[in-house]
Amino acid sequence: MIANSSTTIRFLLASRQCELNSLRYLLQRGELVGKISQLVHMLQRERGTSNMFLCAGEGQFADELSLRERDVAGAQAPLLAQLDTLESQIAASPQASRLFSHVASVIYALSLLPALRQQIRQRKLPLPQAMSFFNDIIRHLLSLVFELTDTAAEPDISRALIAMFSFMQGKEFAGQERAIAAAAFAAGQFSEETRQKLLDLIERQERCFATFADFADEQHRLRWQQVQTDSQFERLRRIACSGREGFAADSGLRWFALATQRIDAMKQEEDTLAETLMAHCRARIAAAEQASHQQQADIESLMPQPEEESRYSVFIDNHGWLESGGVRPQLGRSLLTLVQQQSRRLQALDTELAALRETLNERKQIERAKSLLMQHRQLSEEEAYKTLRSMAMNQNKKLVEIAGAMLAVADVFPLPPKE
Amino acid sequence: MIANSSTTIRFLLASRQCELNSLRYLLQRGELVGKISQLVHMLQRERGTSNMFLCAGEGQFADELSLRERDVAGAQAPLLAQLDTLESQIAASPQASRLFSHVASVIYALSLLPALRQQIRQRKLPLPQAMSFFNDIIRHLLSLVFELTDTAAEPDISRALIAMFSFMQGKEFAGQERAIAAAAFAAGQFSEETRQKLLDLIERQERCFATFADFADEQHRLRWQQVQTDSQFERLRRIACSGREGFAADSGLRWFALATQRIDAMKQEEDTLAETLMAHCRARIAAAEQASHQQQADIESLMPQPEEESRYSVFIDNHGWLESGGVRPQLGRSLLTLVQQQSRRLQALDTELAALRETLNERKQIERAKSLLMQHRQLSEEEAYKTLRSMAMNQNKKLVEIAGAMLAVADVFPLPPKE
Repeated sequence: MIANSSTTIRFLLASRQCELNSLRYLLQRGELVGKISQLVHMLQRERGTSNMFLCAGEGQFADELSLRERDVAGAQAPLLAQLDTLESQIAASPQASRLFSHVASVIYALSLLPALRQQIRQRKLPLPQAMSFFNDIIRHLLSLVFELTDTAAEPDISRALIAMFSFMQGKEFAGQERAIAAAAFAAGQFSEETRQKLLDLIERQERCFATFADFADEQHRLRWQQVQTDSQFERLRRIACSGREGFAADSGLRWFALATQRIDAMKQEEDTLAETLMAHCRARIAAAEQASHQQQADIESLMPQPEEESRYSVFIDNHGWLESGGVRPQLGRSLLTLVQQQSRRLQALDTELAALRETLNERKQIERAKSLLMQHRQLSEEEAYKTLRSMAMNQNKKLVEIAGAMLAVADVFPLPPKE
Repeated sequence: MIANSSTTIRFLLASRQCELNSLRYLLQRGELVGKISQLVHMLQRERGTSNMFLCAGEGQFADELSLRERDVAGAQAPLLAQLDTLESQIAASPQASRLFSHVASVIYALSLLPALRQQIRQRKLPLPQAMSFFNDIIRHLLSLVFELTDTAAEPDISRALIAMFSFMQGKEFAGQERAIAAAAFAAGQFSEETRQKLLDLIERQERCFATFADFADEQHRLRWQQVQTDSQFERLRRIACSGREGFAADSGLRWFALATQRIDAMKQEEDTLAETLMAHCRARIAAAEQASHQQQADIESLMPQPEEESRYSVFIDNHGWLESGGVRPQLGRSLLTLVQQQSRRLQALDTELAALRETLNERKQIERAKSLLMQHRQLSEEEAYKTLRSMAMNQNKKLVEIAGAMLAVADVFPLPPKE
């Protein structure tokens, strides 16, 4: 290889090619997020129905459970199929390593489903444990989404992914609210603990949707604002949170129906988000392909004709653009422009992405500190979050500072008890 | 694909494989940095000799120039050869795209060398322009190093790469100091402008070496502290910076010899840094391979014997680890431990890397703001840096804040004048 115009052009084209590849990979990841969203939705339903089943009398909701299981299986198959193709793309990056590690966690969690269902059917598992198994599976799926949102090639698409992730997380808290209140309605009472949990879940939903609104584009933000809260749903929510007793016997079923309506509306919103995301990706790919063709055409018009070849190489090697005159004197300068344009465009993208990544990192630190607490102090997700929050409040610090401090000392954390 | 233990294991192994690949890729990048360091060193020498040639009388330094050109060619060939193999590894990442774009800039800059040399030989190019061409080529090479230091898989190796980059940049300022003062000694006088330039270069060298000390490990920091400054060199530096006239006729040659000694000592230090870096990489690869084998052995000991296969799959699908007893009851729990270990280790690495990346990003923003100014206001690197610094001082802000502000408004910058 020698350092000349042809080699410069080769690397310019290689740079474009990597950019296109990374956009195509992004589209793939977008599709994956869509499939995860579908599976999460079905798992949320099965969780709700399982809770109803465990609280209700013998024989009730068993058929509904079978339907929900079938829906989960229907959503799981396409996701697993896409993950399968992902594995063939072993890459040389720390991100890929983390991604596969998350996939392993997801697959492991999903592999527990059959046993979980059997125990539920046989009523061998108390409701809170059954529910926390479902929560775990969904949490792993959402972590995978979070990993997929990391460091996308395009700031716009990254933002859309973050909006989508926040929305999915908000919807999951709504799903937990549905499941917990459904069980309590079915059991006929709301304990103090249940009411606290519900209030907490409502607060966290709101925070997620606020993050969604921060990152979503105008169109989706407005659409979401227009989704009206149902007044009947709000009335039942008040009953649940106030702990008032003596509600109508069919309140549980009505609650489940209304909460499901609300969550289905969220799923529709999520689908629109996913569609927009894909459309974004496809448009960017088309634009990048177009730009790549244009670049190639520019380069070809600069390159010498075959009969000029011999003079051309002399020109390039001995004159470069330092010398004016000669054959195709514009080649050197034009090539310089192309090289500079490419590098400036990529740098601008990178600067914007770095800012996004910083925002994302703060959220990620909180997630990690939470899962550290969950693993090492055997806390639930909710307890871990509350622990962090109260530490932050007591020390008058930001949540992310506490999370950072916790991660910094992670190595000295006691190991989880051995079985 | 179905969600069971075998699939979980497949993805755990894939995660390991990606990690190993990324470490091997890191080693490759380390080798590349070593080759760039070599080429930069030779270019710095040629620049110095070219300056002597342009200042001295007819016939002097022509042979030395030929020797320097030969050395550059000798260092350029292995670098280009490695870049050539790099191109075959087109990856699907925005990083790869940026990397190739930098390579294109480097190749373009190197392709101008033959023409530059011809003009120098024919004394058609004034010294400052000739020197700024060399500076440009080296700047592009250093940018490539900077890009290569980005987001390594390992915090330790990342830190070593940053230390190496800072050292290389400090050495480049030392090289510019050598070239400028050599020309001025040869010309017999130091103008006010030259003296300012020299003072500035000395200050910037010191800043780079301070950054080097921040990121280097103890051993290299101590080694570098022990590199004694030569008192004769310091005496000539004082003459140069004070603008005192009437120095001995051979001062130029002595300056060049002493400065070269100093820079060669730096190169030795750089070589040690590069060697340590590689040793680091190789040790990490060996450790990761070892861990990977261990993981595989752990997994194999957990996996069923062929005769157990049929019972095993029933066990996994219908019982999972929810059910105790049965065949190999420890499989589920142990697998959970493996999955959690992998994910926790990767997260800990990522947290550390995120903190490093933040530090690095600040430096990168400054570099980018500088090159924006260089491109759009046709400033030299030094002028661009000074512009940023004086803006920061006037507004009582940090350099990185000014750089960030400049990048944020980059789009409205006037385009460079068309030719």
